Amino acid sequence: MRKTSPAGSPPSQRRRTVRDSERTQAAILAAATQEFARHGLGGARVDRIAARAKTNKRMLYYYFGRKDALFLAVLENTYAGIRNAEKQLSLLDAPPAEGIRRLIRFTWDYYVAHPEFLSLLNSENLHAAKHLRRSRHVLAMNSPLIETLGTVLARGREACVFRSGVDPLQLYVSIAALSYFYLGNNHTLSAVFGRDLATPQSHAARLAHMADLVLGYLRPDAAGATCVRTDAPRAVAAAAD
Amino acid sequence: MRKTSPAGSPPSQRRRTVRDSERTQAAILAAATQEFARHGLGGARVDRIAARAKTNKRMLYYYFGRKDALFLAVLENTYAGIRNAEKQLSLLDAPPAEGIRRLIRFTWDYYVAHPEFLSLLNSENLHAAKHLRRSRHVLAMNSPLIETLGTVLARGREACVFRSGVDPLQLYVSIAALSYFYLGNNHTLSAVFGRDLATPQSHAARLAHMADLVLGYLRPDAAGATCVRTDAPRAVAAAAD
Repeated sequence: MRKTSPAGSPPSQRRRTVRDSERTQAAILAAATQEFARHGLGGARVDRIAARAKTNKRMLYYYFGRKDALFLAVLENTYAGIRNAEKQLSLLDAPPAEGIRRLIRFTWDYYVAHPEFLSLLNSENLHAAKHLRRSRHVLAMNSPLIETLGTVLARGREACVFRSGVDPLQLYVSIAALSYFYLGNNHTLSAVFGRDLATPQSHAARLAHMADLVLGYLRPDAAGATCVRTDAPRAVAAAAD
Repeated sequence: MRKTSPAGSPPSQRRRTVRDSERTQAAILAAATQEFARHGLGGARVDRIAARAKTNKRMLYYYFGRKDALFLAVLENTYAGIRNAEKQLSLLDAPPAEGIRRLIRFTWDYYVAHPEFLSLLNSENLHAAKHLRRSRHVLAMNSPLIETLGTVLARGREACVFRSGVDPLQLYVSIAALSYFYLGNNHTLSAVFGRDLATPQSHAARLAHMADLVLGYLRPDAAGATCVRTDAPRAVAAAAD
């Protein structure tokens, strides 16, 4: 979708033109992210985006197309941001329970640092995800995360520290839900329950509760006492029979 | 805040006037709920509300005041709706685990049946809950629910079927979160994970996962084997010592 500038000029000048083009596109994306997060798709104005990106509407349309296409580019860029950050977690380099703990803390921290992510999702849901459903990129971005989480769960099961039968997609949605709802509805929750849920103490208590909830759930059943570690020495496995 | 019609007329006529007044107020509230849920506080138009309620702006202002006050009345009415429905659950008449299961299923069903509740909360959070924070009613409405959930948790702990140290407010927020996020973000989640999360099968799987997650978490610790049922006969308690 995004375009590079025309060729036909000397290499050094072409490199500079490409750099300028990339810089302009990045500036437009950053400005559009702010504008869509603040005003939603309906309320966002392309001329405000162009002005904030220090460019003009013609350039904006040249690189991204009309407002709907720009909104999709923002959504894709936003998902790429969180998925790339998740990759840095190296969930598979830690023991399974630590991997889950990392994912919970990361999700929380990311939502705290990126309130625009929550606003953009709200906006796209108001439009029944009609933009994201046209995107081939997002599917490709999201499957590896669920696959990695599936591997963490399988390893935990094999080591007899997790229960069996957990759907990684359901669990990921739940981990996201626990942070998202608390942060996105912090104002109303604080008001209706008469407790300030935005203090550092409240945040720490919430993070502890979420980890307890998810890891408490993942504990093997009492019946899991019969669990045989597939990575355990044979003698132990035999004793458990 | 809401007003009844002036007195000074014969009793039967006064009863009719009171009935008419209540009917008009209910019609305004219903129309305003729809309008605010669809367009948010900023986009809602008082003349559309008056037209849909088959009344006029003067009557609307007479009963509720300006748009902000009407929005708060809608929010209070909406919270009263869910809290009154929760009371019918009689959570204390069931064994603790069944009480939790009922609350999860109820919360899910209520959000499915009342998408306007989710929209109104989103809208009020955009305004940092400035209306709800002015309301004395909502605090009074919400505390009994958390108190009841606290009693369910205490009974489960006493019967050695639940762990200790669970904050009922955190748990309630989590139960709400698990349904709210899934339903409110159903479109984007379905798009980015390439799975239709709105089918009856998907809904049933989600409900089962949420119950497993919460009840799995609530299981007592392995150390809970030393739990002594305070409602158990003395001989058993002694044997566990």
